Amino acid sequence: MRWIGDQIVSRNVVERRFEAIVSSRQIPGILWTPSEVQPETPLVLLGHGAWNHKRGDYVLSMARRLVRHHGFAAVSIDGPIHGDRRDEPAENETALFKEFNQSWKRVELVEEMIEDWGAALRAAGTLAEVGHGPLAYWGLSMGTIYGLPLVAAERRIQTAVLGLMGTFGPTGERLGKDAAAIECPVLFLMQWDDELIPRNRCLDLFDQIGSRKKELHARPGRHAEISPEEFLYSERFLAKNLLP
Amino acid sequence: MRWIGDQIVSRNVVERRFEAIVSSRQIPGILWTPSEVQPETPLVLLGHGAWNHKRGDYVLSMARRLVRHHGFAAVSIDGPIHGDRRDEPAENETALFKEFNQSWKRVELVEEMIEDWGAALRAAGTLAEVGHGPLAYWGLSMGTIYGLPLVAAERRIQTAVLGLMGTFGPTGERLGKDAAAIECPVLFLMQWDDELIPRNRCLDLFDQIGSRKKELHARPGRHAEISPEEFLYSERFLAKNLLP
Repeated sequence: MRWIGDQIVSRNVVERRFEAIVSSRQIPGILWTPSEVQPETPLVLLGHGAWNHKRGDYVLSMARRLVRHHGFAAVSIDGPIHGDRRDEPAENETALFKEFNQSWKRVELVEEMIEDWGAALRAAGTLAEVGHGPLAYWGLSMGTIYGLPLVAAERRIQTAVLGLMGTFGPTGERLGKDAAAIECPVLFLMQWDDELIPRNRCLDLFDQIGSRKKELHARPGRHAEISPEEFLYSERFLAKNLLP
Repeated sequence: MRWIGDQIVSRNVVERRFEAIVSSRQIPGILWTPSEVQPETPLVLLGHGAWNHKRGDYVLSMARRLVRHHGFAAVSIDGPIHGDRRDEPAENETALFKEFNQSWKRVELVEEMIEDWGAALRAAGTLAEVGHGPLAYWGLSMGTIYGLPLVAAERRIQTAVLGLMGTFGPTGERLGKDAAAIECPVLFLMQWDDELIPRNRCLDLFDQIGSRKKELHARPGRHAEISPEEFLYSERFLAKNLLP
């Protein structure tokens, strides 16, 4: 892996770009840490949604909150065909939508993203204080498509926020199976009027999560209209379950 | 109405018992206020569940929190065939269950409880500072059977916590219709493994609530196993929506 460019420091938050390599894939990522990092600092993995990227508004906002309010570290990587993993932007939203639906069908990307997150963890772990303490995952929509299987596979992840997804689409069946293997506390967010993911498929995915410590939060609104209050609640949920 | 016995004062919470009269029914109630009541104090109506009463553990606990943490007032009354509205305790749980299911069929009790709450409000309102400010309702299970129609009918109620109930049972259809008329912010709690109320009927009742500001919270567990964290969240939810 290599660090890219200079650190950016914004009110106590140090931001470092990196590129990790795994199976000859280049994984562009960002690590956020407090200016003064404690040993064994909890690390939150932030998975962005489709048509977004590793430094999208809500990703950056969540990362900064986790660092500033709780002293945690956060790491984010671009998902397949997103952010710096593509050479040029899509022509328009329709093209992007089509492209995403194509890539969703490449179910092998699920395994690749588990590898990619592993590479991101090793990159973060090159700092002595980061990546060796407790881990958490936060990711909705595409962030759940590629994050829920990671939560099931990576037993060091001790809590997660998931949602805006169901047992639906090309990876729906696998999501349900992986959900059953999850044992850590999970907050699951859904939008009651989601126009992309059928309501009963979202409820079914929540149902299949194996953990006894799971919570479902639903509010009216379309797929992308998650309430800011649920971001706040996410932050508290992760903090509560990451602290000893 | 008349006040009964002496006030009880416990760490800044004044508790007064009363009996209100409406349509020749005697309504036993309790009013909780801060030791020093501000004018236009918000008042929260607390509706207990079946096999409980106006001073059940969680009712008392919620009342004291609302008073101590927020300076609100709270009022609670016994529901039909509960608490001091009955001459003697039921013989056993089975008898009580049977008795409750019988009384649930008396759909006219819904209207009567709306009247009873009106009488409780007038009783509370005999104190100059109470019952003339904003109102809220909190009640689960039987507290929703008899409380949701009140929230729909009493437009002074500006927020509510409801749940553990569905479009189910003798009053299910009416609940759905009343839910559609509710326009204030509602937190709806359900238990994912509720053994009394079918899951899809609970989801349907949430669905029918007319308000755009509604939230569904669900966790694993049986009917009576609501998490203490949801009581805490309830408290914050009411406070947020009662304050100007």
